Amino acid sequence: MEARTYPEFSTHYPLLLTTIMRRPVRMYPDQIGVVYRNHLSGEYFRFTWDQWYRRVCRLANALSSELDVVAGTPREPGDRIATMALNTHRHLELYFGVPGVGATLHPVNVRLSPEHIVYTIRHAQDRVLFFDDALLPLVEGIYDHIKDVVQRFVYLSDKPGLPETRIANLIHYEDLLARQPEQFDWPALHEDVNATLCYTTGTTGQPKGATFTHRQLYLMTVHVMAQMAIANTPSIDIEDGLGVRLGESAVPLLNTPMFHIHAWGAPFIAVYSAQKIVLHGTFTVQGFCELVEREKVTSVGIVATIAAMLLEYPDLHKYDLSSLVRVNVGGGALPLGLKKKLEALIPSFRMSSGYGMTETAPTIVTSFIKKDLVDLDREQTDALLVKAGLPILGVDVEVVDDDGKPVPKDDQTVGEIVVRAPWTTERYFRDPEKSAELWRGGWLHTGDLAKVDAHGYITIADRIKDVIRSGAEMVPTVLLENLIAMADFVQEATVVGVPDPVWGERPMALVSVRTGFEADEYAVIDFLKTHGVDTGRITKWMLPKLVAITRDIPKTSVGKYNKKRIRDELDRFLAIARDVSDRAS
Amino acid sequence: MEARTYPEFSTHYPLLLTTIMRRPVRMYPDQIGVVYRNHLSGEYFRFTWDQWYRRVCRLANALSSELDVVAGTPREPGDRIATMALNTHRHLELYFGVPGVGATLHPVNVRLSPEHIVYTIRHAQDRVLFFDDALLPLVEGIYDHIKDVVQRFVYLSDKPGLPETRIANLIHYEDLLARQPEQFDWPALHEDVNATLCYTTGTTGQPKGATFTHRQLYLMTVHVMAQMAIANTPSIDIEDGLGVRLGESAVPLLNTPMFHIHAWGAPFIAVYSAQKIVLHGTFTVQGFCELVEREKVTSVGIVATIAAMLLEYPDLHKYDLSSLVRVNVGGGALPLGLKKKLEALIPSFRMSSGYGMTETAPTIVTSFIKKDLVDLDREQTDALLVKAGLPILGVDVEVVDDDGKPVPKDDQTVGEIVVRAPWTTERYFRDPEKSAELWRGGWLHTGDLAKVDAHGYITIADRIKDVIRSGAEMVPTVLLENLIAMADFVQEATVVGVPDPVWGERPMALVSVRTGFEADEYAVIDFLKTHGVDTGRITKWMLPKLVAITRDIPKTSVGKYNKKRIRDELDRFLAIARDVSDRAS
Repeated sequence: MEARTYPEFSTHYPLLLTTIMRRPVRMYPDQIGVVYRNHLSGEYFRFTWDQWYRRVCRLANALSSELDVVAGTPREPGDRIATMALNTHRHLELYFGVPGVGATLHPVNVRLSPEHIVYTIRHAQDRVLFFDDALLPLVEGIYDHIKDVVQRFVYLSDKPGLPETRIANLIHYEDLLARQPEQFDWPALHEDVNATLCYTTGTTGQPKGATFTHRQLYLMTVHVMAQMAIANTPSIDIEDGLGVRLGESAVPLLNTPMFHIHAWGAPFIAVYSAQKIVLHGTFTVQGFCELVEREKVTSVGIVATIAAMLLEYPDLHKYDLSSLVRVNVGGGALPLGLKKKLEALIPSFRMSSGYGMTETAPTIVTSFIKKDLVDLDREQTDALLVKAGLPILGVDVEVVDDDGKPVPKDDQTVGEIVVRAPWTTERYFRDPEKSAELWRGGWLHTGDLAKVDAHGYITIADRIKDVIRSGAEMVPTVLLENLIAMADFVQEATVVGVPDPVWGERPMALVSVRTGFEADEYAVIDFLKTHGVDTGRITKWMLPKLVAITRDIPKTSVGKYNKKRIRDELDRFLAIARDVSDRAS
Repeated sequence: MEARTYPEFSTHYPLLLTTIMRRPVRMYPDQIGVVYRNHLSGEYFRFTWDQWYRRVCRLANALSSELDVVAGTPREPGDRIATMALNTHRHLELYFGVPGVGATLHPVNVRLSPEHIVYTIRHAQDRVLFFDDALLPLVEGIYDHIKDVVQRFVYLSDKPGLPETRIANLIHYEDLLARQPEQFDWPALHEDVNATLCYTTGTTGQPKGATFTHRQLYLMTVHVMAQMAIANTPSIDIEDGLGVRLGESAVPLLNTPMFHIHAWGAPFIAVYSAQKIVLHGTFTVQGFCELVEREKVTSVGIVATIAAMLLEYPDLHKYDLSSLVRVNVGGGALPLGLKKKLEALIPSFRMSSGYGMTETAPTIVTSFIKKDLVDLDREQTDALLVKAGLPILGVDVEVVDDDGKPVPKDDQTVGEIVVRAPWTTERYFRDPEKSAELWRGGWLHTGDLAKVDAHGYITIADRIKDVIRSGAEMVPTVLLENLIAMADFVQEATVVGVPDPVWGERPMALVSVRTGFEADEYAVIDFLKTHGVDTGRITKWMLPKLVAITRDIPKTSVGKYNKKRIRDELDRFLAIARDVSDRAS
C-alpha cells in the first residue's frame, strides 16, 4: 500500500505571498493594521486587519470573476495588472490581491517620463490599469497610446463617483469591491508563478522589466526578517532602550513609493510581522512629520534627498518625532555629514545604510555593527553605518576585478559588485539580450563599483557608467560627494565628469547650499582641502576643477542624482559653474 | 536569441544546509565559533570558524572519496550515515558534512533500548556508523546485530589511537580527517534531497523514521530566526537590557541532545547566526554550570526535568549564571511552579515554552508576549509564557474537534493539534502505513490534545493516548501536573490513569519531593484543594484518588514522563501509592 502523501503541505509547501497576507489577520484581526492619510485632503482612513483582508478578498473576487484575469503557471506569467498609484491602503490591497490570484502586479513608476510609462505598459501588455484619482491627468495624457493594450481602467479614489473623463468603461474601485463577496478561496498557486514585474528607471535606455516569483519575494521577506534577528546593533537598539518599540510593535511608515521596487520589501515585511503600517500617499515633509507624531512611527526608509529636505524644513522642531528610531537610507550613498546633521537635529534618529537595485528585489546588503565591533565609539560606528554594509544571510555578494576575482579587502581597490541570491531576478521580461548582459558567468552584474574593508563592509564607489576617468586615474566620485556633504553649509552635492581635452575628464561639483548659510564655490574647494586633502582622505588631483552652486540638481524618479541628465544638459551647468582650478591645486 | 539564464542562482537557488554552514566562515573566520567541553575529562577544545570549516571539508572529502558515500536525488535518498554521538564539535561537523555531500544523516537516539537502536539502524540501512568513544560498550553490544548492514565504523574520540575491540575495520575519525585535503567542492544538490532521518522514541511501538530535506531544514531555520525578529518580548528582552547579549552575540549552549530531532534546530540556527556554540558532551549539572559561567552562555533549551535537576543542585549558588537570560523549555509542559522556583533562584533566567515533535522537525509553536499584552504584569505574562504558545510564522496550526473543525477559543474545549508547514515531514522512511496514519485529510495529526485561548495561545492538554477518562469526563492531566508542581515541596509530578471498575479510570499522581522538604500524600491533595479546587481551576472530581511519593518517576529517552512505562509497571506504583479518596472528595 502506498500512502497518499501531502507534499503540498510539507516538502513542497509553496512559498506564496498569500501566506504573508494571512498572518496578521490571524494574529490581530481586530487591531488597526493599516492607516492611510490622504496627502492632499489630510483625511485619515483606518482599517483593522480583518477589514483590510476582506477588502483584499473582494478585490480577488473582482479580478477572478468580473475582470476575468488569467492566472500564471511556472512557465507562463499570468495577466499583467498595472497600478499607477501612490502609497495607499488600496495599493497595499493590490500588492497582495493581484499576485494572490496568480496574476502579475506591475507597479508603474509614475515618475518616469510619459514616454517611458507608455513603453512599460505596452511592453508588459498590461490588461488592466488601476490608477489613483490624483494621477488622472497623467493617465488621460497617455490614454491614446495605451488604450489598445489596456482593456479595463479602474479608478482609485477616497471619494465616490467617477470623474468626467474620456477614458472609456472606467470602473470605480470601491464599486468594484462593493459588489463582490468578502471571502475568497485563494488558489493553490505554484511558488514559481510570477508575482511582480518591476521596471528599471531607464536612465541608460529603455526601462527593463525585472521579474519576480512568489517564492522569490517570500524568501526575500523571511531572510530580511531573519537578518534583523541576528543583526541587532546593541549600541543602537538595546542600550538606548530603543528596541522596545521594534519587532512586531514597530510602526513602519511606508515612505518609499510602492511603485519603486516593492518599496524596498517593506509591505511584505510589515504585513508578515503584523506591524501597524502607515501610508502617506506621497512624501510631503509636513505630512511626514504629522504622521510620525500622530501614529508614533518607529521605522522608515528614505533616500538621502528626503533627509536633506527634513534638514531644511523650518517647522521640524514643532513636531515630536522621538518615536522614530530606525531610519534606513537607500537608493544611493548615505553621506556621513547628512547623517550627523540630521541626528543632531532629531536625537532619536538612528540612520543606517543599505544597498540593492531593481534587479535584486532589492534587499541584499545592509549595514549593521558586527559583534566584534560593538565596542567602537559613536564616531566609529557611524562611519560603518554609512557604508552600504554587509551581505544579508542567504546572499552571495562579491566585489570582483575584471577577471572576476574578488578584490583585496583593503577598503581601497575598486571592483564591480556581483550577486547571486534566491530572490535576484532570473531574467528581464521578454528581453533575452539585456538578460544576457545582466547575468554573465553565473553572476548578476550590478554595474556598481565598490570596495571592501577588512571586516567585509562594502562601500559603493560609483556606477560604472558614472566613473570619472582623469588621466590614467579614476576619481572617487562618491567619496567626493560624501566629503562635500560634511560641510555645515551643504544641503546636497553631486560630482560628474566634464570632458577635457587634456585629462579626458575633469570632475565638476554641483552643490546646493542650506537655507540660512552662505558659501561660494571656493568655500567648497577650501572645505575639501582642509577635510579631504589635509586629512589624507583624497589627494589633490582629485579636487573638482569646476563648482556650480545651484538649487536645481536633477534627480531621478527615485530621488537619486540623475547624472545622465546632468551630462545631457551639461551646457546649462557649465554656464553657471565657476572654474576653481586655480584654487584646486 | 535566447539568453542563458541562471535559475540555479536566482529563481531556483537551492535552499541547502551548506549555505547555512558557509556564513559564519565568511563573517567571522578567525573568531572562536565552536567550544566543546568533554564531560568526562573536563577538557576544552576550541575552534575558530575557519578551523571548524576545514574539518567539515576534510570530512566531506573522506565521505565522498574514501567512504564512497552515494549522494541522493529528489526521488531517492543518498546513503544513510548513522551517528551514535553526544554533543561534540565532531557531531556538529557530521551535521553539515553528511547532508552536504548529499547523504542522509541518521542521528541514532542512544537512549533508546538496544533493541530499538538495532531496529532503527537496520530499518535505515545505515552504511556507515560514526560513534563516540564513550558509547563503545553500547556499540559492541549491538555489533553482531548490525554488522551485516553497517559497512564501516568510525571512532570519534578526543584521544588518538583505536581501542581494543572486536569491531572490524574500525577507523579513527581524526585519522580519517588527517589524510584528506581541507578544501572541498560542495556539490550543487537539489534542495529536495533528503538531509536527515530522525526516528521517534517509539513509546507506542517501533520507532518511525521522519524524513527531512535540505529545503525543509533550511526553511525551518530562517522562519524560526524571522520569528525571533518580530516576537521579541519587550518586558523580557529589552526593558531589562537583556537583549544586548542576544542576536549574533548570543552564546547558545546546545543542551538538547543532537540525536534528538536536530537538537530542536539549534545547530542550524546558531551556525547561520554565527553565534559562538557551546557543546557539553552530555548534560551534567556541574558541567552545565561550569560552561555557563566560563563561556558566558546566554541561551539554552532544556526539558522540565533538567530544570528540576538544577533546582535540586546544592552547589548552584557557587556559579555565576547571570549571563543566561533565555531558557526555552520544550519536550513537554513547563509547569508554572517550576518556572517560578527556578527564576527565584536564578534571577536572570527567563523561561518560556514551546511545542513541537519529531515529525515537525520540530519547531512550530513558541510562546512569547503578543504586542497587545505587553503591559500585563509579571504574574500574567508568566502564565502566558508557560503555555505552548503561538504558531510561528509560515506554519498552519489548528486545534480541531473530531470533525476537523477548529475548537472555540475558550481556553477550555480540547481538540487535537493538526499541522501543515514547509518543514513538516512528508512521510516516514519506508513506512507508507504509518505515513497514512500521520497525514489524514491534508493535515499532520500530532496526537496531542490542546485548547486555545482568546488570544490564540495554545495549551497542551495531553497526549491522546495519555488521556484519563473518568466517567463521561476527561481529566485534564497536564493541568493537574502543573498545579501540583506549584507546591514548594514538589520537585516533579505526573498523573496517569488507573483502571477502575466504576469510573473507567481514576487519576493517580506520582510526586517526587524536593530535598530539604517533607510532605506526604495528603499534602498533595490538600495543596490541590486549596490552589486548584478553591480557586476554580479544577473541580473536585478531578482530584487524584491515589498518590505515590517516589523519587523514581520513569522518563523517556528525551526526559519526558514515560506514561507508557508507568502503565506497564502499574503494580509497582500501586504498591507504594496511598489511596487518598477519603480526602479527595
